[in-house]
Formats: sequence, C-alpha cells, structure tokens
Amino acid sequence: MAKQSYICGLDAAMSVIGGKWKSLILWELREGTRRFGRLRQALSGVSEKMLMQQLRELEADGIVHREVYSQVPPKVEYSLTELGVSLYESVLPLAMWGEERMDGIGAARASA
Amino acid sequence: MAKQSYICGLDAAMSVIGGKWKSLILWELREGTRRFGRLRQALSGVSEKMLMQQLRELEADGIVHREVYSQVPPKVEYSLTELGVSLYESVLPLAMWGEERMDGIGAARASA
Repeated sequence: MAKQSYICGLDAAMSVIGGKWKSLILWELREGTRRFGRLRQALSGVSEKMLMQQLRELEADGIVHREVYSQVPPKVEYSLTELGVSLYESVLPLAMWGEERMDGIGAARASA
Repeated sequence: MAKQSYICGLDAAMSVIGGKWKSLILWELREGTRRFGRLRQALSGVSEKMLMQQLRELEADGIVHREVYSQVPPKVEYSLTELGVSLYESVLPLAMWGEERMDGIGAARASA
C-alpha cells in the first residue's frame, strides 16, 4: 500500500479514527483490556467480521494491541497501546462535545 | 427520520463529524466564510455532488450556515455557526494529534 498523503492533521487523525466502530472501540478500551466477545457485546449492531476488520486496522495503525494467550480455548485480549491512549485523550473534548449535545443532535435530525 | 440514539458522546459527535469530507469542511471553514468553488478546490478529490451533500448534512446538524446573496450570478457562502465553532474547537486536540504523527501514520500503513 502506498504511503498516503493527508491534507491536514485532522485528515490524518480521521483516517485512523474515522468511522463509527473505530471510535467506539477506542472508547470501549479506555478502561482496560477487553476480549473480543465483550467488545462485540458493547458495540451492539457490529458484525463479527466487521469488528475483526476494524480491530486489525487499528492494530496496523499501532492503536490497539492484540494479546494471544496460548491456552485451550485460546484467549485473545485487546488493549490500547501508548499511541492509542494518546489518541483516546485527544478525542476526549470531542466526546464531551457530543455528550453535552447528544439530545440536540438527535432532535435536529428528527425535525430535518 | 426517527430520533437516533447514541452509545456515547463520542458516537454522537462522530455521527456529525465522521467521514473524511466533513472534518475537512470544518477545518476549511475555520478561517471564515468560503464559497462553494473555493471549498471544492481546497478539498481536492471531492465531487460536486458529494460536497453538496456533505454541506447539506452539516447544515441540517446546525454546524454550517449557508448564506445566499440574491445577485446575478447568485453568490452562496458557507460559514461555521456558533455550534460549528464549538465543534471545531473540540477537534483541535485530535487535529494536533494527527499533525504530530502524520508521517508515522503513513509509514505504518505503507509497511503493513
């Protein structure tokens, strides 16, 4: 894959975090490690295939660490890397913006 | 359209700003009003139809204001609303995160 060029920093950041599921995965991992099944439960509506793909991309971008424990049945845990934690911290103001305006956003859409 | 429900504030915020073009539109309007043609020029690669659609959605969400001047030929200018400015301010840390790591993000992708 060729090295991408970005218009600005926000463009680069959105290429990592953009899309519904990735930001929710980041949010869900803020409190620590999660197993695949628990992640999927938290992100109601995501398919197994889609969640796996999103996790792989986040792993390739160095945001998520995947730890495989060789036991039977195999246990796989996901967590944020140091880079992932810095990304989480940088979306906090955006998350607060959404939190404060959540009802308003829905209402505007409904009446549009 | 039914009122949407969101898993968290970040989910709500991403529903407004998610997607490549919307964040770039927000970024481009940070310095003031822009005419459609200039916006399209700044967002190299966006089609006229796509840009129009993204602007309409941002307008419906109260982020972007569309001012039509009745002159010949008609002049249409876009700007951030007060809500749009607050959204812009809340993505600043994320934009800085991307700015600082822009080269690294590209490199990780290229070697993946």
